[in-house]
Amino acid sequence: MAKKVGFIGLGMMGNPMSKNLLKAGFEMIVWNRTVSKMKELVDLGATPAGSAKDVAQKTEVVITMLTGSADVQQVILEKNGVIEGLRPGSVVIDMSTISPSASRDVATEVARSGANMLDAPVSGSVGTAVMGALTIMVGGDEEVFEAQRDVLAAMGKNIFYMGTHGLGSYVKLVANSIMGTYMAVIAEAMCLGAKAGVPTEKMVEALKNTGASSRVLDLKSPLVLEGNYKAQFMLKLLFKDLGLALDTAASDTVPLPIIGLVRQYYAQALVEGRGDNDFSAIAAMIEKRAGTKLSKP
Amino acid sequence: MAKKVGFIGLGMMGNPMSKNLLKAGFEMIVWNRTVSKMKELVDLGATPAGSAKDVAQKTEVVITMLTGSADVQQVILEKNGVIEGLRPGSVVIDMSTISPSASRDVATEVARSGANMLDAPVSGSVGTAVMGALTIMVGGDEEVFEAQRDVLAAMGKNIFYMGTHGLGSYVKLVANSIMGTYMAVIAEAMCLGAKAGVPTEKMVEALKNTGASSRVLDLKSPLVLEGNYKAQFMLKLLFKDLGLALDTAASDTVPLPIIGLVRQYYAQALVEGRGDNDFSAIAAMIEKRAGTKLSKP
Repeated sequence: MAKKVGFIGLGMMGNPMSKNLLKAGFEMIVWNRTVSKMKELVDLGATPAGSAKDVAQKTEVVITMLTGSADVQQVILEKNGVIEGLRPGSVVIDMSTISPSASRDVATEVARSGANMLDAPVSGSVGTAVMGALTIMVGGDEEVFEAQRDVLAAMGKNIFYMGTHGLGSYVKLVANSIMGTYMAVIAEAMCLGAKAGVPTEKMVEALKNTGASSRVLDLKSPLVLEGNYKAQFMLKLLFKDLGLALDTAASDTVPLPIIGLVRQYYAQALVEGRGDNDFSAIAAMIEKRAGTKLSKP
Repeated sequence: MAKKVGFIGLGMMGNPMSKNLLKAGFEMIVWNRTVSKMKELVDLGATPAGSAKDVAQKTEVVITMLTGSADVQQVILEKNGVIEGLRPGSVVIDMSTISPSASRDVATEVARSGANMLDAPVSGSVGTAVMGALTIMVGGDEEVFEAQRDVLAAMGKNIFYMGTHGLGSYVKLVANSIMGTYMAVIAEAMCLGAKAGVPTEKMVEALKNTGASSRVLDLKSPLVLEGNYKAQFMLKLLFKDLGLALDTAASDTVPLPIIGLVRQYYAQALVEGRGDNDFSAIAAMIEKRAGTKLSKP
């Protein structure tokens, strides 16, 4: 019999992720705070639930894919939340990017119901989610993780078990902090060449063959060259993640001077109204500050 | 008849580069300030010269591969330097990483002799130089560049013409500034995960499948995991390059706040005596500051 999987949070990422679970043959129960977002999934064969609690009552595995720590706490812990419907042996897989400490707090509450939680944040864009090729970093009990590999494999290609509760979230914050810094320093350094007269397109081609080579350079430089900042991963969400990294680092006494500075950069971009753009729009702010242009004429 | 190529600066990079020119069939005249470094090349069939001037008198193309701006100015412009031996139509190819302004000054002097200069700094390690697979970024007159493609192709696989004099040097500084920042932020961010208990090796494997993916992560994380900082590219040389980038940016009024901060990191590593290590030794400084360990136990 097919595993019954609940999915809460049918946004830009949750929509394709839940579709891939349906495609993989899981029996899906879905719920979304904005009810209209359930329609597409229901049309494809998912069963709509009446609340987060309802999802948990009807399934053995509940996935949450929400924006921030507060959303996850609300949907799981508050009235009519997941926790009220959990049964012993149920598993909650939170795939949102939230703070490791919030994730651990929720895991503790979930454990009180005799259920288990995994933090399993994802790396990849909407396109990667559609292809079922996300990278998933998992924290929690290893046997619980192994028992849910089939569910995770429907959404992701590269699945990594990191260790105890919260460590999936930690690695996600590490990844996004590095990615955000790559983007900012690529733009910053390229302004030096652009202002001197190096054609940006030629510069990018050369940089791809140097120590500046990175996935960010490959994927984002074409957008920067076009000045096309349509969101794949919104700048304001990266700003949120950098904040989570810095807050966590402050609790753990880990100095992060570069990431601290980089977050100020993104803060300035927010002030300039670029929050709903792709995070690569940091390049538009940086080129303006430098008095040059990275996009092709 | 084979082109006569002079090579000055037979150090860690110059040695394999000049060997590849010999292998490609060029008639080689070599010179090095430390005379003993010529022996190996002479044994392989190169002709030793008595001075930089002597090299220029006997060749049509003179390559310089030296440490810094002062070395290049000395070897090319001072007494018994290249400039005294240049003939109209000769070409000087400086492959050192020096400041774009110094490079342009030397190019102007070289032009006064009726000769031409290209700035053609390289990206890649000693291993890449041995394989003749360097990336070469070229500034100068385009026809002069095209006429020397055969010479450059003996040393490099990816050869990019960037534009007028100095622009090759600019792009090299952009590349190394980005690379040095990648390395520092990878180490900084990974300390957040490591201190929380994520095994570094697992973290690296996951990060390679996220937006943190980069050539630096691929090539340097194994060294960081081993705590093996034997120099492939010395930290003190990266520190020099970051200084060149910042000085150039100051002249050109380009703000580089991230790269400025990153250079302070490398300055601290120099104070700690890590200058002769590989630049990835910045990780050893950062993990110590964070009170954690990135290398495997």
